[in-house]
Amino acid sequence: MQRISDSTVHRLSKYFRTLIYMQGKGIKTVSSKNLAHHNGVTAAQVRKDLSCFGAFGRRGLGYNVVDLRSNIGKIMGLDRAWKVALCGVGNIGRALLDYDQFRSQGFQITVAFDKDPAKIGKTIHGVSVRNEIDLERDVKAEKVDIAVVAVPARAAQSIVDRLVVGGVKAILNFAPINIKVPPGVYIRHENMAIEIETLSFALTNPDLVQSE
Amino acid sequence: MQRISDSTVHRLSKYFRTLIYMQGKGIKTVSSKNLAHHNGVTAAQVRKDLSCFGAFGRRGLGYNVVDLRSNIGKIMGLDRAWKVALCGVGNIGRALLDYDQFRSQGFQITVAFDKDPAKIGKTIHGVSVRNEIDLERDVKAEKVDIAVVAVPARAAQSIVDRLVVGGVKAILNFAPINIKVPPGVYIRHENMAIEIETLSFALTNPDLVQSE
Repeated sequence: MQRISDSTVHRLSKYFRTLIYMQGKGIKTVSSKNLAHHNGVTAAQVRKDLSCFGAFGRRGLGYNVVDLRSNIGKIMGLDRAWKVALCGVGNIGRALLDYDQFRSQGFQITVAFDKDPAKIGKTIHGVSVRNEIDLERDVKAEKVDIAVVAVPARAAQSIVDRLVVGGVKAILNFAPINIKVPPGVYIRHENMAIEIETLSFALTNPDLVQSE
Repeated sequence: MQRISDSTVHRLSKYFRTLIYMQGKGIKTVSSKNLAHHNGVTAAQVRKDLSCFGAFGRRGLGYNVVDLRSNIGKIMGLDRAWKVALCGVGNIGRALLDYDQFRSQGFQITVAFDKDPAKIGKTIHGVSVRNEIDLERDVKAEKVDIAVVAVPARAAQSIVDRLVVGGVKAILNFAPINIKVPPGVYIRHENMAIEIETLSFALTNPDLVQSE
């Protein structure tokens, strides 16, 4: 089977959200054209993305909303709960502890770490903050699936190395620095400035961008 | 000239960061292949993305790092300072007030708003928090270019409507809700859960994804 790009997976995430919305509205079926329209892509793109994983719709009938949602959820691994560890309880970390979009998609921060004595032992948004010194041991004991790294850039590589020692196979990095991981470990970088740059691009090139 | 997609602009952002990194390392020229390798795309994709905006490299010689960085910066509008207003000084808002990646790319949060009397008048990371009641008047007076909306979902549409009244043409929305804006206004949505879903996808389908 072909490799799937992150861009395809990002679009599946968006289709999944649209389907949740439609299901909430009681909509039973959706065409590739309509699903495309909601997500700013072409109908051909929607059909191509979905065809990577099988045949979901019926020609002329479109997709059943509940079934397609369920299928994309399974493909994305969103039909189960993932144990998430948070490293770094600063501003971004605190925001993520209270982030509904994580919880609603099955990403449950069950354990958090910091090295600040003023934070260790505190319970923030229902999660008690542990001493970072126990990181390797605790992520192993807690069988953490995914770690979110929200520490300062200078500390990020060392934290990631220790997460890998603790057996963590998937890391979401908020620190503005490239991080090395060994084979078999997945890392993705979250940069909240990327999206604001599409706005400066739009303001700079209004003729090249579709506004609302 | 053709319309440019957000995906293309996102890739330009990434190339721009790679070029900054290379410039810092003293690297003088870069091939499309090398720039592609750093960003997980093909060399053909790099050439296609850049060709939308002119001819920057020379066949066989690659791109001059400093020149290409400068050119992409101009294209993206990253060669100037943008006045940014923050609406909502909760966890995400506080994180953004202290977010180096905004500042370093020219996005300067010069004014922040909240409706919580406990926050109004406080100075947080150098920005004093104003009363949200003055939103329309103040964003107009301050000539705000871009507003970042980090209020709860239920309040987001009303805040955006008021920003539009105040003349703001570009909005970055962190609230997990679809927002309507009139023609001529650009809005982008930041969802910090999209990237973690590429990790659940990778853990669910290790054969379909390249790990490190």
